[in-house]
Amino acid sequence: MRHDHLITSKQLSRADIETVLDRAAEIAADPSAVADRYSNTLLGLLFFEPSTRTKMSFETAMKRLGGDVVDMGSVESSSVKKGETLADTVRVIEGYADALVLRHPKQGAATMASEFVDVPLLNAGDGAGHHPTQTLLDLYTIRENAGLDDLTIGIMGDLKYGRTVHSLAHALTNFDAHQHFISPESLQLPREVVYDLHQEQEGTQIREHDSLEEILPSLDVLYVTRIQRERFPDENEYQKVAGEYQIDAETLEKADDDLTILHPLPRVDEIAPEIDETEYAAYFEQAHNGVPVRMALLDLLLDGGESDE
Amino acid sequence: MRHDHLITSKQLSRADIETVLDRAAEIAADPSAVADRYSNTLLGLLFFEPSTRTKMSFETAMKRLGGDVVDMGSVESSSVKKGETLADTVRVIEGYADALVLRHPKQGAATMASEFVDVPLLNAGDGAGHHPTQTLLDLYTIRENAGLDDLTIGIMGDLKYGRTVHSLAHALTNFDAHQHFISPESLQLPREVVYDLHQEQEGTQIREHDSLEEILPSLDVLYVTRIQRERFPDENEYQKVAGEYQIDAETLEKADDDLTILHPLPRVDEIAPEIDETEYAAYFEQAHNGVPVRMALLDLLLDGGESDE
Amino acid sequence: MRHDHLITSKQLSRADIETVLDRAAEIAADPSAVADRYSNTLLGLLFFEPSTRTKMSFETAMKRLGGDVVDMGSVESSSVKKGETLADTVRVIEGYADALVLRHPKQGAATMASEFVDVPLLNAGDGAGHHPTQTLLDLYTIRENAGLDDLTIGIMGDLKYGRTVHSLAHALTNFDAHQHFISPESLQLPREVVYDLHQEQEGTQIREHDSLEEILPSLDVLYVTRIQRERFPDENEYQKVAGEYQIDAETLEKADDDLTILHPLPRVDEIAPEIDETEYAAYFEQAHNGVPVRMALLDLLLDGGESDE
Repeated sequence: MRHDHLITSKQLSRADIETVLDRAAEIAADPSAVADRYSNTLLGLLFFEPSTRTKMSFETAMKRLGGDVVDMGSVESSSVKKGETLADTVRVIEGYADALVLRHPKQGAATMASEFVDVPLLNAGDGAGHHPTQTLLDLYTIRENAGLDDLTIGIMGDLKYGRTVHSLAHALTNFDAHQHFISPESLQLPREVVYDLHQEQEGTQIREHDSLEEILPSLDVLYVTRIQRERFPDENEYQKVAGEYQIDAETLEKADDDLTILHPLPRVDEIAPEIDETEYAAYFEQAHNGVPVRMALLDLLLDGGESDE
Repeated sequence: MRHDHLITSKQLSRADIETVLDRAAEIAADPSAVADRYSNTLLGLLFFEPSTRTKMSFETAMKRLGGDVVDMGSVESSSVKKGETLADTVRVIEGYADALVLRHPKQGAATMASEFVDVPLLNAGDGAGHHPTQTLLDLYTIRENAGLDDLTIGIMGDLKYGRTVHSLAHALTNFDAHQHFISPESLQLPREVVYDLHQEQEGTQIREHDSLEEILPSLDVLYVTRIQRERFPDENEYQKVAGEYQIDAETLEKADDDLTILHPLPRVDEIAPEIDETEYAAYFEQAHNGVPVRMALLDLLLDGGESDE
Repeated sequence: MRHDHLITSKQLSRADIETVLDRAAEIAADPSAVADRYSNTLLGLLFFEPSTRTKMSFETAMKRLGGDVVDMGSVESSSVKKGETLADTVRVIEGYADALVLRHPKQGAATMASEFVDVPLLNAGDGAGHHPTQTLLDLYTIRENAGLDDLTIGIMGDLKYGRTVHSLAHALTNFDAHQHFISPESLQLPREVVYDLHQEQEGTQIREHDSLEEILPSLDVLYVTRIQRERFPDENEYQKVAGEYQIDAETLEKADDDLTILHPLPRVDEIAPEIDETEYAAYFEQAHNGVPVRMALLDLLLDGGESDE
């Protein structure tokens, strides 16, 4: 992998993705081998939006590599409130850290910020833009549970606004996956995303559905996302739609025994708690996989940086 | 000590308590012996309520053992705001950490959370429920200053709402202490707590008073707690009550020379600053003792965990 | 250097300042020599006011020395909200840490706090009072770029309220610098500050101006500060004044080729972005210098403490 920054999963070739996933698997198999590898390394955390799992997972990853973090803290407690530009903030903080992680509510923020810094910058979400480390941990979890070859995946829920979904769908075209998109009409994939996906691979591999039932038996993986109440002007409308896209034991009667269920979390009620203890459920494992995947990424970017200088 | 989680001091036998206090004393005597013992260990901090000293003291304890922490941060900046359940939050974060510390405003939260995780979970306060590490550091400070055998202790202030007090009183029954409870009538120990204490040991060892004066000369330890202004609908009523339960040099004229004064802190005006420099005052030492006691607990739980697997 | 606490740059002699700057230069030249020097050391951070760069820079400094921090967090999440005094808070937290860093909105807070603790305390800003580590990093950056001997410096912007400016101006009298103060009349240096500066060195070396133009060609260093909008009751008045004290490429046509421009950051629009890439700009370097300078200070205070005991 030869990149200075990680801004979008679109910049990653199939070979790049496999390099990251292979390294993550090595690290997961023997974390002690890297436990002191970056003992003098500091990762700068710039989260301009709240986040629990992405931030904690990056922090854990850096610390599991023997390093440490310096955290800008919340926007309320920072110089941003005094009118400082993002370009100035990242240029100051790069003086404290060996790499930066940025989450920002504005699309394109990570690209812009990366142009001002010399240390590696990892995009941890830029509004409606990209969130490449989420995609990589999704791919890792799919590979561990179902394999990425000959994959048939259903992606269900809010497909209109979910950057996680668009990014994952795009990455899966590298592996010629059969992708089924299941959502109410009002939350379908944006037409331009569908168009892009068709450009990337044969059209027959992308299908849209408004019900899970017909397609469920053929799925290796079902990726569920949260339907956000605030998208609906009418509470009744939300209740109707949300109820149809909830998974419980009854829903899964027609599923393949080897089905793997994923969810980027947090969930509200898209997946009933009774599923948690079944063999289907891999969403907590998926969250935990954020650590080895981000360890692998940090290792590849920091190491690459070193051999570069 | 053979426990997976530490939820309440009620789960600890006298032998368990002594194991923790002995280990804490060893660590306090030679902290360098354990300074790198847990160098690859991460403690997850989940504080759903503000806290300064408990949180900093756990963080210090883990770092003094060579480890590090990953902190969920405030509820405002977390996924909890998106409607995630506590069960989901702890199951995600256990993937990042080797042990968890939980503070939560709801009684029973720690017990519930502990059922969902495989790593050791330490309760750092669950609303009106328990706060066992506070009790252990109180016991440690009493033992260091006055001994736990043949102890006569006065516990004064808000005895109605203070979980610290209930938990300490219960733990002291293991040591057959003579306990005197001093409070205004409106802030007396709840009847069920008194009942429980009488069940645990001979009734003559539990006495209630509405004034410190008569009992002060016989005390080895005086444990003072804050009377919270917000408990009183009427400011005048508060002033009258609070004034009677404040300690200053004059109050202490009749005290034994060896009296030890404790307070869980923060204080407002229950203890006059003029006491701080006297031999009586042990409340800052008490706060500092949170570090070796929590180091001992972490050591016992993490070590136990290891030999278990 | 023989000090227990660092409260104000006024306590530092020229020899003290040179000791710090020399040590900072050594550390900057070879940070790996000290990377594990304080591996069992904890720095307590008490920030009663928001801060990004001062706090991150202290945290980075301690971690680059191999140590770690324990952070009180925001006032909102602390015991301060329960009415605890600063004296109590610092006495509790000194039990967790080997040194303390304090920022507080009230002038004199650091002096008061230092009287209650035995570990070294560093003032990171006490309201309108002092901010000695900022002054030291300013001096370090001036020395690296222009030298401190025979220095001619212009200090421009809000000279009335800026503690940074008062502290720097005072420290520069140790080096017999020629100091030019450039500001609108309403934001001139307070008369008592001017009086003090004249007491410290020959009067001819302190001059005040209301325009940069005439003095610019003679300057080795131009130190720019932010003019705060909220100082002006009238927006038009602000716009007029602010516009006159902004630096862009045109302004600098008459500057010496070796001019160094500094700014304590954050900036709003006092310096046009087009200056950032020129040889003049040293303000990001200045922010980064906070790390070696604070490493040097911590090293001198912690080491001094050790040999003392």
